[in-house]
Amino acid sequence: MAAAANNNNNNNSPAAAAAEDTVEEEVARVVEQAKELQETAASLIAKSSHDEQSLRQKALSLESSVRRCRTLLNRNNRLAPKLVAKLEEDLQKARCIITDGDASAFLPSKPQGRFLKMFLGPINVRASRKDVQWKVKEEYNSYRDRTALLFLLFPSVLLCLRSWVWNGCLPTFPVQLYQAWLLFLYTGLALRENILRANGSDIRPWWIYHHYCAMIMALVSLTWDIKGQPNCAQKQRGVELFLQWAMMQGVAMLLQNRYQRQRLYTRIALGKAKRMDVVWGETAGVDGQLWLLYPILFILQGFEAYVGLQLLRTAFKGVTSEWQVIFCGILLVFMAVGNFLNTVQTLMAKSRFKAKMKSKSKQELD
Amino acid sequence: MAAAANNNNNNNSPAAAAAEDTVEEEVARVVEQAKELQETAASLIAKSSHDEQSLRQKALSLESSVRRCRTLLNRNNRLAPKLVAKLEEDLQKARCIITDGDASAFLPSKPQGRFLKMFLGPINVRASRKDVQWKVKEEYNSYRDRTALLFLLFPSVLLCLRSWVWNGCLPTFPVQLYQAWLLFLYTGLALRENILRANGSDIRPWWIYHHYCAMIMALVSLTWDIKGQPNCAQKQRGVELFLQWAMMQGVAMLLQNRYQRQRLYTRIALGKAKRMDVVWGETAGVDGQLWLLYPILFILQGFEAYVGLQLLRTAFKGVTSEWQVIFCGILLVFMAVGNFLNTVQTLMAKSRFKAKMKSKSKQELD
Repeated sequence: MAAAANNNNNNNSPAAAAAEDTVEEEVARVVEQAKELQETAASLIAKSSHDEQSLRQKALSLESSVRRCRTLLNRNNRLAPKLVAKLEEDLQKARCIITDGDASAFLPSKPQGRFLKMFLGPINVRASRKDVQWKVKEEYNSYRDRTALLFLLFPSVLLCLRSWVWNGCLPTFPVQLYQAWLLFLYTGLALRENILRANGSDIRPWWIYHHYCAMIMALVSLTWDIKGQPNCAQKQRGVELFLQWAMMQGVAMLLQNRYQRQRLYTRIALGKAKRMDVVWGETAGVDGQLWLLYPILFILQGFEAYVGLQLLRTAFKGVTSEWQVIFCGILLVFMAVGNFLNTVQTLMAKSRFKAKMKSKSKQELD
Repeated sequence: MAAAANNNNNNNSPAAAAAEDTVEEEVARVVEQAKELQETAASLIAKSSHDEQSLRQKALSLESSVRRCRTLLNRNNRLAPKLVAKLEEDLQKARCIITDGDASAFLPSKPQGRFLKMFLGPINVRASRKDVQWKVKEEYNSYRDRTALLFLLFPSVLLCLRSWVWNGCLPTFPVQLYQAWLLFLYTGLALRENILRANGSDIRPWWIYHHYCAMIMALVSLTWDIKGQPNCAQKQRGVELFLQWAMMQGVAMLLQNRYQRQRLYTRIALGKAKRMDVVWGETAGVDGQLWLLYPILFILQGFEAYVGLQLLRTAFKGVTSEWQVIFCGILLVFMAVGNFLNTVQTLMAKSRFKAKMKSKSKQELD
């Protein structure tokens, strides 16, 4: 081949013929190799999809064995309680290995849901490798961290400028910029959380619905006329409350993220959690931190409902007659109630779990 | 095991002991199997990632061989032109096998771009199997078909209601609903096209940028106050023009989609195209159809620029002084110019290709 290149400027016929041969041979070889490559790739794909299929069947049948054993254990009241507890733990471990280990990549995935399909089409967003799934989760956490800071900063700046520069009356553009950012943010969060769910996260559906509601609210508030003539303070009271609530939410998000991550790492270390768990809002950490976080969450939810009711009040008192005000008011109250119910449910699940753990350790002491 | 279940209500001690044994054994067996499954899965993953790695390297080295051969062919001017043409065709075939065959799944993918990362995080949207990639493409086409119909219907209904029901003055809500739909639509299209690109489609980057611009415009137009007191007809002139332009675009999209698909199927049949090709806007079909499509595209682009200029005119004549009007005007003119340049480039590439084909078939006749 190098010879062919060197013969380029050489005029005698035999050398040219040799070059011709060499190039022709080279091309023929490349074509041959391409065909071989295609065959190898096709057979590799066929083989690995066959292997995956058999692994999937094994995993599925093992899953049903675990379920069968559980039923056996529950029905069988002749066994010593200690033994039952031990066997239950073994089964739990087996289940964790199946659903959390490398085999989980081959288990059929949850359906991805309408939201993802609407935006992305029928593409598969499930990562087959655990380390990629973890990367997705880690990135989601750091995205939320960055977001929480902006969540705190953006409304604070708006409110500060309002009292120091804008004489108590917000101009339209910065507020709309903020609302557009919220729309983008909630869309991104909803998409990412749906992707996490497809990757096996246990995130409560409500927290995703909550983001759908927030998306709709951001969209509606974009069309909301806040130009404040004749009475700015009165007309913008809703916006002001909303910004204050957003600031509080920023603080709560920062706290949540910190505790969430700590808790996740602890639970991973204890082998109790799938690493895909996201518990937006329900959060817990060490017990001590809970005493700080839950009151903040409840205050936040109360304030959310208050903002919603205030909006409804201004609408029905006739200060502003736009449908957006009524709509946002109702939506905020709805979201506050939903958040409250879900937080309470999480708390109850947590205390049930704790009671179970306590009785278990008591049993073991006995 | 069945015995264990039946012994449940039996009180004699030996049977209970037997049941205990059976359940214990069963659980131990399940745990053992789970561990085995984990090992099998881990080794399968390791093995297939090793196989993929070696296949990737083969594909990459073969790609560079093809490039090397091409350089050789171009430099070597001693070969008969016919032979060069034949060898070039062989190389093209080899390249198609590598980049379009089963091996392409193992080639490193194009970086997915900031837009996808912004909305979805670091998730991989590339389908490794060809049939899935094709499904994505098919779904994109049918999504565009459904969309084009709405694109035609939505503004038509608005304009009809305007003259028949609303006395020539559009109410705010339906227009904002339409704009919100546009925002959702363009976001979905931009996401899907980025996904197609990651899956090897040759879509021109401009058509994706065009959708980013359209997203921004939909967002800005949402904040645009169109309430028409005192002079509705004058204030809503821009909206009216915009809706008319959208109707025309709906017709063009329907035509494009039809021709696009025909052309794609023809090209797939001829083995010339990767099935991932999307050529939004550049479209062509059979030659006869081009004579219909390109004039429509150019008229559309002209009208787009006209609407933009009209918006700028109303802004500078002082009828409406909102920044949104100026911004949308500039954006529309920019998009029209970009569309025009890209359509012309596509036309030129097409005619170059045709000229090449003609000279080739002439050569073959000689």
